[in-house]
Amino acid sequence: MTTSDPTHIFDAAIALAPAADGHYTGHTHPAYANMVGPFGGVIGAALLNAIVQHPQRLGDPLSLTVHFAAPIADGGFSVQARAVRTNRSTQHWYVELIQDDGVAAFATAVTAVRRDTWHALDAVFPAALPADSIAPAPAIPRAAWTACYEMRFVDGIPGAPGSESASSESLLWIRDQPARPLDLLSLSAICDAFFPRIFVRRPQWVPIGTVALTTYFHADAAQLAAQGHAPLLGRARALNFRKGFFDQTAEIWSTAGELLATTHQVVYFKE
Amino acid sequence: MTTSDPTHIFDAAIALAPAADGHYTGHTHPAYANMVGPFGGVIGAALLNAIVQHPQRLGDPLSLTVHFAAPIADGGFSVQARAVRTNRSTQHWYVELIQDDGVAAFATAVTAVRRDTWHALDAVFPAALPADSIAPAPAIPRAAWTACYEMRFVDGIPGAPGSESASSESLLWIRDQPARPLDLLSLSAICDAFFPRIFVRRPQWVPIGTVALTTYFHADAAQLAAQGHAPLLGRARALNFRKGFFDQTAEIWSTAGELLATTHQVVYFKE
Repeated sequence: MTTSDPTHIFDAAIALAPAADGHYTGHTHPAYANMVGPFGGVIGAALLNAIVQHPQRLGDPLSLTVHFAAPIADGGFSVQARAVRTNRSTQHWYVELIQDDGVAAFATAVTAVRRDTWHALDAVFPAALPADSIAPAPAIPRAAWTACYEMRFVDGIPGAPGSESASSESLLWIRDQPARPLDLLSLSAICDAFFPRIFVRRPQWVPIGTVALTTYFHADAAQLAAQGHAPLLGRARALNFRKGFFDQTAEIWSTAGELLATTHQVVYFKE
Repeated sequence: MTTSDPTHIFDAAIALAPAADGHYTGHTHPAYANMVGPFGGVIGAALLNAIVQHPQRLGDPLSLTVHFAAPIADGGFSVQARAVRTNRSTQHWYVELIQDDGVAAFATAVTAVRRDTWHALDAVFPAALPADSIAPAPAIPRAAWTACYEMRFVDGIPGAPGSESASSESLLWIRDQPARPLDLLSLSAICDAFFPRIFVRRPQWVPIGTVALTTYFHADAAQLAAQGHAPLLGRARALNFRKGFFDQTAEIWSTAGELLATTHQVVYFKE
């Protein structure tokens, strides 16, 4: 399920050193710095990594909810993972990221042993020009982490000058930069790599921050292996901006048109 | 934010008796029985109620994630709520439901003090015939809880005989039965009252169970008060059925066309 490459910055950023039972230590990575503190997708992946590495883990990640509870400072942190309940084929997890004796982030997750069943896809693979026909968007200098993803926008590039847009939707090809074979850890981080929808709907700068993020993983090992380094197609949109918060949802598709993950988050914004 | 009516079965079903600091005791209610154990929406509402009642609570519910970790037996349970982190205007929560010394369900939540800001609605209010022009669907005898909701299906009534449907989408008017003024507690339960999408897409009986459920609350007190007893418009669909699990999403709209909540869940199914 993981394709750890110790030479890749993503693997360095989510690396955890095991301490006692279910306890780990980690460190923020400058390559994934955001405007304030680290990029949340990498923090969520580090919390998921504590589960993936846990000796009691049963099955592969099915769902992940990450709470960004407080600002995370650049530097070291500790992680504690606990299997709250273990069933025959599913397991429920609670994980905390601790910094300066306070919980700065925490996550819940489900891991599951999955079996072949009837299957059906209800969502529709978005029509998109091929990735190699679109130039990658430049990274955003004040958000270092954006240089860690290659993003090729089919539609809905954020920050385009002008008045309010009628839609917050973006469609883009995305992959790790430098390229890295996809696994559920990198997929979990990519689920948080869609720019805040408020910057598409209303391109004007305001402070924002993801409050909580939930991802459902649909991909199995064969799909991840087939995807490899190739760009994923992501579609993100917001539903409602109101009273200081908005929610946004996204779908992540394989190049071959399989739905690999769906993700939802609630985001704070300051007017 | 709450409109507690001690004579209503919903309020009886989510009632918690405070014990020590952040500890409560509760009891399943036969009116909300499901085929096995209680209806999950009422369990989630009871966990949220522990936060709503908590003396340290800051603000109103913004997000709620409930993990259904193990079967819940009919009978008593205890609930423990803990504010993991309190910020200036947001607070992050962890709540456990304990039965027979094990964690049978747990939840995380964010409460927030909300302020008027710029607002915009990206989702589209679904076109629907008025509620009073549609007959309520009969309750399902083997799922007692279905008698606690008045559901009027505009489209996508589950269990219609026939072969696989191309879409898992349902559109319906829904409210508590007997009618009860809407609050965030009853809204949280209604978010879990959409029948499992597999029964719309493929009307054949299989065991299912919600594994985890996340809801984002958009409604404020004025919108809840304006809604009162009137039917809500709900739209639910699945995105992907695969390897024993599917995800489903729903929007809950006020009669006046305001988006009150969005919700997502991952559901186990046995082939």
